[in-house]
Amino acid sequence: MRVAVIGAGPSALAQLRAFQSAAQKGEEIPEVVCFEKQSDWGGLWNYTWRTGLDEFGEPVHCSMYRYLWTNGPKEGLEFADYSFEEHFGKQIASYPPRAVMVDYIEGRVKKAGVRDWIRFCSPVRWVAYDEGSGLFTVTVHDLLKDTVYTETFDHVIIASGHFSVPNVPEYPGFGSFNGRILHAHDFRDAREFAGRDVLLIGTSYSAEDIGSQLWKYGAKSITVSHRTGPMGYAWPDNWQEVPLLQGVEGNTATFADGSSRQVDAIILCTGYKHHFPFLPDDLRLKTANRLAIADLYKGVVWVKNPKLFYLGMQDQWFTFNMFDAQAWWVRDAILGKIAIPGEAERAADVVLRIAGEDAGKDSHDAIHYQGDYVKELIAETDYPSFDVDGACEAFFEWKDHKVKDIMAFRNHSYRSVMTGTMAEPHHTPWKDALDDSLEAYLRD
Amino acid sequence: MRVAVIGAGPSALAQLRAFQSAAQKGEEIPEVVCFEKQSDWGGLWNYTWRTGLDEFGEPVHCSMYRYLWTNGPKEGLEFADYSFEEHFGKQIASYPPRAVMVDYIEGRVKKAGVRDWIRFCSPVRWVAYDEGSGLFTVTVHDLLKDTVYTETFDHVIIASGHFSVPNVPEYPGFGSFNGRILHAHDFRDAREFAGRDVLLIGTSYSAEDIGSQLWKYGAKSITVSHRTGPMGYAWPDNWQEVPLLQGVEGNTATFADGSSRQVDAIILCTGYKHHFPFLPDDLRLKTANRLAIADLYKGVVWVKNPKLFYLGMQDQWFTFNMFDAQAWWVRDAILGKIAIPGEAERAADVVLRIAGEDAGKDSHDAIHYQGDYVKELIAETDYPSFDVDGACEAFFEWKDHKVKDIMAFRNHSYRSVMTGTMAEPHHTPWKDALDDSLEAYLRD
Repeated sequence: MRVAVIGAGPSALAQLRAFQSAAQKGEEIPEVVCFEKQSDWGGLWNYTWRTGLDEFGEPVHCSMYRYLWTNGPKEGLEFADYSFEEHFGKQIASYPPRAVMVDYIEGRVKKAGVRDWIRFCSPVRWVAYDEGSGLFTVTVHDLLKDTVYTETFDHVIIASGHFSVPNVPEYPGFGSFNGRILHAHDFRDAREFAGRDVLLIGTSYSAEDIGSQLWKYGAKSITVSHRTGPMGYAWPDNWQEVPLLQGVEGNTATFADGSSRQVDAIILCTGYKHHFPFLPDDLRLKTANRLAIADLYKGVVWVKNPKLFYLGMQDQWFTFNMFDAQAWWVRDAILGKIAIPGEAERAADVVLRIAGEDAGKDSHDAIHYQGDYVKELIAETDYPSFDVDGACEAFFEWKDHKVKDIMAFRNHSYRSVMTGTMAEPHHTPWKDALDDSLEAYLRD
Repeated sequence: MRVAVIGAGPSALAQLRAFQSAAQKGEEIPEVVCFEKQSDWGGLWNYTWRTGLDEFGEPVHCSMYRYLWTNGPKEGLEFADYSFEEHFGKQIASYPPRAVMVDYIEGRVKKAGVRDWIRFCSPVRWVAYDEGSGLFTVTVHDLLKDTVYTETFDHVIIASGHFSVPNVPEYPGFGSFNGRILHAHDFRDAREFAGRDVLLIGTSYSAEDIGSQLWKYGAKSITVSHRTGPMGYAWPDNWQEVPLLQGVEGNTATFADGSSRQVDAIILCTGYKHHFPFLPDDLRLKTANRLAIADLYKGVVWVKNPKLFYLGMQDQWFTFNMFDAQAWWVRDAILGKIAIPGEAERAADVVLRIAGEDAGKDSHDAIHYQGDYVKELIAETDYPSFDVDGACEAFFEWKDHKVKDIMAFRNHSYRSVMTGTMAEPHHTPWKDALDDSLEAYLRD
């Protein structure tokens, strides 16, 4: 039996670790082949200065930027089978910068020894399912050899992420704006905008965090335009929230309330698309970015073909440990330890999940909803059980800390639900910590 | 019989016009289906403010920027069957801005009435050739309906261009440079860099023209780094040519001669790739960017499978009328009016062409070499014959004018080899003509 995993980011690496964990316990596992477009693992966490198309002419996967620290507490995403303390030899502060997170993510899979399951520089060009043979054919471009080949698999697991292909709306006048217009996906170094007046469109994490970075690294002003309502935090003096952008003329941006301002650059923090250019209609997920996702039984099994799985396609409060819960579950489904019901029952499950999410009133409910989903999956596998409600509590505290002081929430620390250890506060307030290296973060 | 054309830029539009021209003369032509990724025709000439990925998550095709004027005289590229005078009702000056060129390109195909042969927003995902049936299957994503479908064709003509996928090298320190790094492909508005110190890498047309634009629109300084040698024009005072970049640290760039300077942005003018992610090994062109291209008999027929054609894949002195020469020739090959020889002879033709190009000593020889190629193809079809040597002369004059004053060469004018009319000098020197609209260019 052969299993293809597409992508080598956190979800895919969770899948490799899940299979390796079973093998380690003496179980027989299928051959797992992981296809990764990039030259290294880590998915989104793999930073590059590149934007647009990469050295091979492929779309750049990276949506991260320099100086990024996690925007939620690490206590909400910790691996249950590999704690921060195990990796770093001590507990660390709660909002690690990117380099620290990469080190942690890599630590577990290095220990598992699964790197040689991955074929790097290998974008998947096409996947097809053959009813006759019951197999998938996967067409792959080996970019280093510049050859294209096809192999067959019994199962395919799509773990290519959904925060890499930008959703890029147009506003009147963009064609003649006299500055840079970019999507958050292409944002790299906040210092590029030092001394500049920057307009951001959007009110979700990208706008909040990129705006905060611009402030931290010396932008002259930050203006954030919203469609439905402001984020409403207590922003610094040079930060203003304004209604929706109506259009630009030269360098003047005008908003729905009739106000206008001169801006040097516009950053579209307008989200990402689920995008699978390598999948035919019968296998391709089409969904909004939400917690209960369309057409996936248990949030992972393709309703129309239970040999196909998707990982991490939900909008996320929980991240790494949710991917783990999914990966362990998918592994056991493939190993035949979990039975997948018929199509009608699979479809009914999706309807129920959507209704469950829709019944929630606020983000508090949403966090519990996703926590319950993680619990549900974990209960059906040998993934180490952990205090999911405790992780939810870290999220609630985090949200309170943001309301209290949006530029200081990362100075707080939380208790690990894996080890029970309280994190120390970081040695330097986030706003003053300009060096985002691993060495700077980990020093005492 | 069905023919697929991939792309709807100048080469593909020449192909549509070639078939329509035969039909107009009473010949029976095959069904021609043209697949275009963008929402409009014009290929590279179709400007967008977008960079990276477009509104559908597909790579942006556009490599053009605002304020672009042709960088060679229009007298070298004029259609033999549709002159500038026919289109504009008068002769116009010799270096039209982009909007004027688009109007001209569109004019011929609007007159031909071929727009409904094109399926827009339809990237080709995959092409395969089946030896058994002798047919190609073309897999296409209809982005508007978000469905993928497959159709079969007797012939496929690849006209997707080769100036859209950037070649992007890395230099030491790029990962921690504190400004914007972009490829010429993503350059859009020179005013973004007003008052800034900009470093360009490369010495071909992108570096020359983007640098000139930066100068025209107020950059503080332009530094151009070369690998093999400087361009050597008499540049303005705030423009310097330096040896190859060794690396950057912070905002300091250091060059091979040990010199260094502070720069705010780096523009990689490092060329483009032939990139066909929708083609398997047996159909995929791999070639350097040169005049005599690998594996194409007569510069257009795929040596290994003569049912497959490529248009416009050569490096270019001649452009539109060379595409025409190719498109008319390919049309007649498909119509059976021109016989394509066996594989050995096709391969031998390629060897001869490469030797012919290699025998040339300089750009003068190269221009004549490509002019002779255009003559060769035209002689075998009913494409209107024209004074190719006269067009070569326009190129030679152009090169002299550049040497004389690189910031003023566009103030010159040349004689049309199609109509014999001398162009008027433009009403405003290029350096002072900040408005690049069609209206501004065409007014008396």
